[in-house]
Order: sequence, then structure tokens, then C-alpha cells
Amino acid sequence: MAVNYATPAPDQLFAVPGVRLGTAAAAIRKKDRRDLTLIELAPGSRAAGVFTQNRFCAAPVQVCREHLAEGGAVRALIINTGIANAGTGAEGLRAARETSAAVADLLGCRSGEVLPFSTGVILEPLPLERLIAGLPDCVADLAADHWHAAAHAIMTTDTLAKAASRRVALGGHTITVTGMSKGAGMIRPNMATMLGFIATDAALTQPALQQLVGDAAAASFNCISVDGDTSTNDSFVLVSSGAAGNAPLEVGSAGYAALRDAVIDVARQLAQAIVRDGEGATKFISIEVAGGHSADECRAVAYAIAHSPLVKTAFFASDPNLGRILAAIGYAGIADLAVDRLRVWLGTGSDSVLVAEHGGRAAGYREEDGARIMRAAEIDIRVDLARGAARATVWTCDLSYEYVKINADYRS
Amino acid sequence: MAVNYATPAPDQLFAVPGVRLGTAAAAIRKKDRRDLTLIELAPGSRAAGVFTQNRFCAAPVQVCREHLAEGGAVRALIINTGIANAGTGAEGLRAARETSAAVADLLGCRSGEVLPFSTGVILEPLPLERLIAGLPDCVADLAADHWHAAAHAIMTTDTLAKAASRRVALGGHTITVTGMSKGAGMIRPNMATMLGFIATDAALTQPALQQLVGDAAAASFNCISVDGDTSTNDSFVLVSSGAAGNAPLEVGSAGYAALRDAVIDVARQLAQAIVRDGEGATKFISIEVAGGHSADECRAVAYAIAHSPLVKTAFFASDPNLGRILAAIGYAGIADLAVDRLRVWLGTGSDSVLVAEHGGRAAGYREEDGARIMRAAEIDIRVDLARGAARATVWTCDLSYEYVKINADYRS
Repeated sequence: MAVNYATPAPDQLFAVPGVRLGTAAAAIRKKDRRDLTLIELAPGSRAAGVFTQNRFCAAPVQVCREHLAEGGAVRALIINTGIANAGTGAEGLRAARETSAAVADLLGCRSGEVLPFSTGVILEPLPLERLIAGLPDCVADLAADHWHAAAHAIMTTDTLAKAASRRVALGGHTITVTGMSKGAGMIRPNMATMLGFIATDAALTQPALQQLVGDAAAASFNCISVDGDTSTNDSFVLVSSGAAGNAPLEVGSAGYAALRDAVIDVARQLAQAIVRDGEGATKFISIEVAGGHSADECRAVAYAIAHSPLVKTAFFASDPNLGRILAAIGYAGIADLAVDRLRVWLGTGSDSVLVAEHGGRAAGYREEDGARIMRAAEIDIRVDLARGAARATVWTCDLSYEYVKINADYRS
Repeated sequence: MAVNYATPAPDQLFAVPGVRLGTAAAAIRKKDRRDLTLIELAPGSRAAGVFTQNRFCAAPVQVCREHLAEGGAVRALIINTGIANAGTGAEGLRAARETSAAVADLLGCRSGEVLPFSTGVILEPLPLERLIAGLPDCVADLAADHWHAAAHAIMTTDTLAKAASRRVALGGHTITVTGMSKGAGMIRPNMATMLGFIATDAALTQPALQQLVGDAAAASFNCISVDGDTSTNDSFVLVSSGAAGNAPLEVGSAGYAALRDAVIDVARQLAQAIVRDGEGATKFISIEVAGGHSADECRAVAYAIAHSPLVKTAFFASDPNLGRILAAIGYAGIADLAVDRLRVWLGTGSDSVLVAEHGGRAAGYREEDGARIMRAAEIDIRVDLARGAARATVWTCDLSYEYVKINADYRS
């Protein structure tokens, strides 16, 4: 069902020196599926993350923040799917802490060096005993080439596992950047998505790692929306094992720039994969808003279009009912927007048509041009606000019967 | 399909002295349906309105604002369905002005005393010649008891006509308040809905009329949402014919308060009817948020819940996946919200259950209680933010397959 996306084959996901992954079936919510993933990191590894801004943030998100605040030294990530451990109060916090402690016992590290993550249904208790009982199987399964299996084990309503991998020359070293993500609904990340993990063997200073995870989130996960719902569990974590042996990279160094490009490239692939596999998605839509006073107002316009159920259903129907895009631009909150100056284009690949200008339909626009482009699986909406030099891009998908079906059935 | 709503019978809609209505089939967009409505008002009538805040506001909205700015004297309203005359630039403005002029010619009044309204597809030109050709049929059809027919003639994707009527004793007079509305999708009014008309024979001063239309909008149309899309054409107009012969009411007079209650009652019925007939709606959901610092933050929380596709699909499925409500509250934008203090209840009629408190599921909550309430057609969500004394209520509906179907097919 995903729009132009296929999970990379196992041998396309390069192992990251210093990183091993193991999965197990722990019956967190359903039986007989691998729902528990352990990522073990070599001593000396560091991590930085960005997390949901949702006030009802999940217990594991709170624990991650606490543990990362200790300085960034990390030895393991533990991820369960099925139950989000969000909206679970003090009991949920205790469960997340005990999960970390149990992993630390098994691996012989401190509890503060273990980051816990959960995804799934909100408001239901985490089955802590079953989770802990599954940990030894995860440890027994640890291997450097298990990214493919791990990407499958963190899925919920995803139809495809999402992963990406790059190798980059860094001075005398070849370093690796490999990541995975999950998410298909409740996707409108505010700081990061639910869930994204990228690991590299390149060594970075902690400030550089923190800067890079923020930059990568801003250029990837923070540009996507499926349904406008910001999850309670959004987490994007960048891990550095340091196994490449390079001198730790600082922000601004030559090597940092090359690594940054690779991390952003991987993050963007993972983020776009979430939209391509958005619940019920049949179209992948890029919305580029230029000519704004600020990037914020460009983002506001792009998200108004991306979240409009009317725009999204029109794309599902391949119906060029494009006035709905103008309506969304009009209510995006720019009080002094001059609608007679802005222009709107619709395109796919090199095929592009000017739809609206001078406050109405463009003189040269013909319905058949709009209809032809709307039938494509990859569509660009370009808006020029004609009031400044700022721009922003948002990626989203259409709204289909299938979205309703998936979310009406999700727990059953 | 509408949730607990039936159009009042013709004899339940009281004629308003000084007001006559006539409809005609003008083939605006489809043939053989009445799509043009003229409301003729006796000399001395006044009107006040509130209109969409959408920057892409429709041409007729712009003309209404101009005409009302001349002082409020009004002799006619002309309403077409099928084409919104929005996103139509200078040509659309000319069409709206010529519509007013043509009506003024027929009725022997000034063009500035005619208010034009349009609803339907955006970005397509108004067929002005066909509209003007249909006006004489409207005039020939004028009658005081044609509210029922007019309420049908202004429909688009509505499945039922929406109208309401009240009589109120006012000093020695019995005055009448009758209104109609339309709208089922692109409903998230910001100042007013697309479209609401209420007429009364009570005389009011222009400032009192303006105050009353704003108060009534705030208590009715501005509290509803179907899909979060603010229309380009939202218009809510209150008309006073003065035919009751009372001394014009001022804000604060005893008679004003009684009339205000009646107008708000009618406006609320019309607004709720739009939600009950929301595109694809199977549930009517009242969201009451109390205990906020301000009404604005209460409204922000209520709308976050009302607009969440995940909440809306869960209600469609009668699935008490209520963590989705917590997630929506959490991303509603209150940065210092204490989630461990707030409480959430679910109810229908006198059956109510505490769902969440202390940041998680309430101790006494049982899934079967949630499931029982979710099966009802009328559901209340109550949230206590526990941080102040402000409150706000929003009415919305669920999100079903049918919403997608209607909006994927709308123009075909």
C-alpha cells in the first residue's frame, strides 16, 4: 500500500560498528510477533535525542530525557511495540524505569545508560513482567546485521519496515550511518517522530551530537504530517558508537559537515517513508511554500494545506477541486495575506501547471491539466506567497477510506 | 443520515411579518433543482452580519461587508447554491455586484440594500447570466410561508434542510424569530458559518442588531466543527423587519434580553443541525472544557479534540480508545498544562464515567463503561483542566467512511 517505498533488503542496511540489535516476541499486546527490540551499544557510545512536545508525553519519553540529561553516555536502547506506556501516570513511569534497570542488569551497565521507548495504544498499562521476561531472548539474538529485523519489530500500523543506510568517507575512515523509523498514524511530529533511530560509528562530541539530532529532525521528521495528530511518544535519537576511531567531531569541522549531510539524508528518507506508508495513503504530496515573511508562516500555510481533510480527500479522488487549497491557505492565520498576489502551482515530476493567481483561477489553467497531475502518485503543491524570501516544505499524504478503516479497527 | 435531527415541518416555521421568500431553479451548477433563493424584506428592514475570517473570502462576502457598512438598511438577500464565487478574483467581485444590481432593479431598491450570498464549489466562475435569468421566477414565488422551501434551496451536501423558529412575547407584542442554515462540510466557522440566516419582526437599533448577531454567532456557529476547514463563504446574517411595530430595542433593555435568548436558541439549533448533518456523521459529540485560565485555551483544547482524526474515527467505531483524547489535549498548545491534575469524563445523557485522572486511566474506569457510552449517538466529553474558572463548549461529529466518500465525489 505504501506510495513508492520498499524496505531496503537486509544487505542494503550496513552494520554500524559498535552497534548490535536483537528482537524477541514478548506478547506485549499480541502473541507470536516480535515486539521487543534491544539495541546494544559499545562502551563509550553517546546519544542525543529530540522528543514530543505533547504535554501528555509518554513515561519512556520522560525517562529518556532524564537519562540523557546525565551527559549522553548510553549503552542500550530498549523498544517495545503494542503499548505506548502513555497516559499511565506514576505506574507507567515506574514501569519505564524498571525496564531500564532490567536491561542494565543484563548488560552490566548503569540504568541511566539505558533509554526506553514504547509505541502502541495509549492509556493502557505496560505488561512489565512479560517485557522483562522477553529481554534474555533479545540479548541472545544480538547481532550487528539485525537492522532489518529490528525495523520490522518496531512497527505498529506500518505496512512496511522503514530503514536507510549510508557510508561516508571521513578523513581516513569510512563511517556508516544506518537508521530505522516507524509510524503511520498519529503523525504530526513536533520535534521528532514516533520513532526514529539513527546510529553511526563516527565519534562526535556531545554538543555536536545534540546539534546534529536537532538539525536532522528539523529537516526531516518535523516536515511531515499524516493526520495532524502529534503523538505522545515521538522520539528521534541519534547514537554514536565512536567505533570508527576518529577524533570526536565538533560542530563546524569539515568532517562534521559530511556526516551531517549523510545523517540528514538518512533522516529524510526515514521521515518520507513514514508518509509514503501513512495510514491509507495512496499519494505522496510535497507542499512547498515560498515567498513568506518567515519560515514559520510558510510552515503554517503548508500545514493548513496538509491537514485539510477536504484537500486530502480531493487528492485521494484525483479530483482537481483546487479551491480547497485556496481555502486552506486563506485560513492559515496570516492576517495580512494579499490573496491577489499569491500563486499556486500543481505538479508531478517535470509536469507543472499554474493553478491560481490574481485571487482566482489562472487564465491558462485547464481542468484537464489539473486532472492529469492529480492522477499521479507523487504530487507537488507549490505556493508563492509573494511577500518575502522565507520558505518551508512539508510532506504529507492523502486521506482515504482506508485511513478511517485502520483507525476504526486499530485496537481490535 | 443526520444524527437525531429532522427538518421542522412547514407549519412549524412561523412566517416573519415583513419577510417573504422565493426560490427558483436557475441551473447554477445542476439542472432541475431549486438553487436560487430570494429573501425580500419590507422597507425599513435592517441587517447585521458576521463573516468568514478566511483571507480567501468569497466575492459575495466582500460585497456584503461593503453594503452593510453603508448603515444596515437592507431590502433583500439573494443566495445561490452550486458555485461559491470564491477564488474568482476581480471577475467574481463584478458578478456579485451585478447580482445585487439585478435584484435591486427588480425590487425597486438600491443595489447597496441587497446582500448576495453564494455556496458551492470554489475556484469556478459564477454563471451570472443564468443566475439573473432565474430572478423573475424567485420574485414570482415570493411568499411569507416559504421558509421550508428556502431552507431546501440553499443546501449543498446537506442531507436535510435546517431551520428553526420561535415566538416570544415582547411587551404587548408577540414577535417571531425564524432562521435557516446550510452546511455539512468545510465547517469550522471563524466568526460565522456557511450559511446562517435569522429573521425577526422585532425592531432593533443597528448597534443592538450588530451586538446580537455577534453574541449569537459566538454562542452557536462559532462553537461547531465538522472537519476543521474554515470556509471561504461563512456568513451569518440577522435581519430585523421591524414589522412588529415595537420601539427599536437597545442593548440592555428588558425586551432585548428576551429577544437575545430566542435568537441564540434558534442560532444554536441551526448550528447544531449542521453538525448533526455533518458529512458522514453518525455521532453528535459535545466537548465541554472547564477549569481553564481563559476561554481561549478551553476552546483550543476542545478544538484539538474535535479536529483529531484519530478521536473522530474512534467515535465512529464506538471504540473507547480514549488515550487519543489525552494525546489531543496534550498537543493543544498549553505549554504549562499539568496533566496529572486534569480529569476527563465521557457521558451520554445521565450516564457518565470518569476516564482519566492523575495523568492516567482513572482507577474506577472499566472498558465496558467506555464501550457502552461510545455506542450512543449523543456523546459528551468533559475535560476539567483544573487551572482556572473559564470554560468553552464545542460541538462536533465523528469521521466515517462516508465523509471520505462524500468529499472524494463532491464535484462529480
